[in-house]
Amino acid sequence: METLTVALGKRAYPIFIGQGVLQRSELLLPYLRQPKVAIVTNTTVAPLCLRRFVDSLSTAGIDVAEIILPDGEQFKNWQTLNTIFDALLKRRCERSTTLIALGGGVVGDMTGFAAACYQRGMPFIQVPTTLLSQVDSSIGGKTAINHPSGKNMIGAFYQPTLVLTDTDVLDTLPDRELRAGLAEVIKYGLIRDLPFLEWLETHIERLLGREPQLLEYAIRRSCENKAEVVVADEHENGERALLNIGHTFGHAIETGMGYGEWLHGEAVAVGTMMAAELSRQLGWISANDVGRVEALFTRAGLPVVGPRMAADRYLELMQHDKKVQGGKMRLVLLKEIAGAVVSDIATPLEITRAIEARSIHA
Amino acid sequence: METLTVALGKRAYPIFIGQGVLQRSELLLPYLRQPKVAIVTNTTVAPLCLRRFVDSLSTAGIDVAEIILPDGEQFKNWQTLNTIFDALLKRRCERSTTLIALGGGVVGDMTGFAAACYQRGMPFIQVPTTLLSQVDSSIGGKTAINHPSGKNMIGAFYQPTLVLTDTDVLDTLPDRELRAGLAEVIKYGLIRDLPFLEWLETHIERLLGREPQLLEYAIRRSCENKAEVVVADEHENGERALLNIGHTFGHAIETGMGYGEWLHGEAVAVGTMMAAELSRQLGWISANDVGRVEALFTRAGLPVVGPRMAADRYLELMQHDKKVQGGKMRLVLLKEIAGAVVSDIATPLEITRAIEARSIHA
Repeated sequence: METLTVALGKRAYPIFIGQGVLQRSELLLPYLRQPKVAIVTNTTVAPLCLRRFVDSLSTAGIDVAEIILPDGEQFKNWQTLNTIFDALLKRRCERSTTLIALGGGVVGDMTGFAAACYQRGMPFIQVPTTLLSQVDSSIGGKTAINHPSGKNMIGAFYQPTLVLTDTDVLDTLPDRELRAGLAEVIKYGLIRDLPFLEWLETHIERLLGREPQLLEYAIRRSCENKAEVVVADEHENGERALLNIGHTFGHAIETGMGYGEWLHGEAVAVGTMMAAELSRQLGWISANDVGRVEALFTRAGLPVVGPRMAADRYLELMQHDKKVQGGKMRLVLLKEIAGAVVSDIATPLEITRAIEARSIHA
Repeated sequence: METLTVALGKRAYPIFIGQGVLQRSELLLPYLRQPKVAIVTNTTVAPLCLRRFVDSLSTAGIDVAEIILPDGEQFKNWQTLNTIFDALLKRRCERSTTLIALGGGVVGDMTGFAAACYQRGMPFIQVPTTLLSQVDSSIGGKTAINHPSGKNMIGAFYQPTLVLTDTDVLDTLPDRELRAGLAEVIKYGLIRDLPFLEWLETHIERLLGREPQLLEYAIRRSCENKAEVVVADEHENGERALLNIGHTFGHAIETGMGYGEWLHGEAVAVGTMMAAELSRQLGWISANDVGRVEALFTRAGLPVVGPRMAADRYLELMQHDKKVQGGKMRLVLLKEIAGAVVSDIATPLEITRAIEARSIHA
């Protein structure tokens, strides 16, 4: 097992990464403020790993409430959030009960937001079960639900007290989810870590083949990158925005196509291609560089062209992005490979061209 | 005009108290991060003071979006909160747009929570228009909405960037609201400020008569007390809980009778009588002391006996209180007049007796 730390001063917390940590309740116990937890998971994850997790906690004398949600991005909304609150109240969960998210990004984001709001804040543990949530969304305290016209529009910065990352659970992860997770892994290389990007270019097929040691390395390296950025800029006033490369375009795809149609990682891959294309138009990177990014996403089995949606619709949806400032769209672009920047330099026309170069025309 | 400061380090903020400050946009301007605000108010407050507030901002070149909610505690819920989010998105409000609450406690609590959640947090200004919100709820960053089975159950600690308290607006406040506000004013004397309690005992009728200088003194003194407690214990891990004297009983009345039937201050007055009665039963204060509290509430025109509701129903509703810990009910009680404590010493039987002594039997 590896232990990383997200060094946020008084709110610092560990990330435990390893095989079988889900059954090691002794890792969690020191972080509980009372011998009671509520676990939020979904109908897909529950049959795969809820029982062994609950058993390990029950054996240690912890009272466990189970809250099982429907699975899918389309349920990341008020209605589902309210079912969490209803269950917490029904089970008399208190301000010092710990809420645990057992699942992927949707479960983690929504459960984290529930923890941030229930009784104005209860302790919260992330147990990510998808590659994407293990390498990205479980770390850093971004929690949210979607609004019909904007992804992650309603939420909070609320840090967990610990993250428990069991690499064994990836054994049952569908291939499509594995690939979507790789989009966020590649992201770290692309925005700030050239040696990692090169390592990924060497090993991408073996990652798709789920070689445990390689997956574990990719997860740890991603978590290190994420933790560094979060510690430097917790509330995204600067550098943290770089983690959102491709996300403004990607969120437009997710929202525009209907939540749940495109996986987040898939939309991010296409969005990153649009950002790369726009960076090329601005003269920052070469066509060769764009080809290099495209080749890696393609080898990872990810889409590199967007869905049939008009560029105007993209622009309209992108206007709701959280990075918009004074009406100006701020995008994460590439000054060079492994060197991302936030910029509002691109005109709507240039953005339109990049979208059109990378999507099926409507 | 008086200026107080809530000394929360980097998040310190001023409270401007005075006549006509609503029209003094120069007080707000330095706190805006972009020349755009959204004002949330309700159908009662809007015709009384929205226009002059908006005019003063517009004249200063600020783009103002207006969001007008229905009036009443029964609207302090998800549905209304969502109408705020919808309006913010429709008006393209950004993460650096400032959200302003113009209204009483319901508007302030709900708007503050909306600001805490919209795009994971936008700047927020309180402009309280009731006595209760001026002396209590606008300060200290408690924001929330109600859940059908628990008042203020879903919310956040989220500090405003400033509080603008115009004492002129109290001229149009209904008498019932004025009295409800006095319950929270009396609270400060009762829990921690004996000289203020004595001052109130001398001047309560003149406060009901709305003498401006006396009202202004009561507001300032209340704000000073509130600010001191909040600075000492922002997230209510200790002393801040004392501000909730009578609130556990009071919330049970508000929730049990249906939100909006009892005003918050009315429920708090009765709840405080129950807390005083329980303190007497525990041998901490005398029957004389209880009589002293009752006399002041009565002179202030506040109820001192609860509604027709079974003690069991009180207990059930009180179980959802945020101060419950390990299943034990923690109540704010009086060790002496002007000396409140948090205690879990009272048994359910003792609590029942105090409720029954102070309510119409069901």
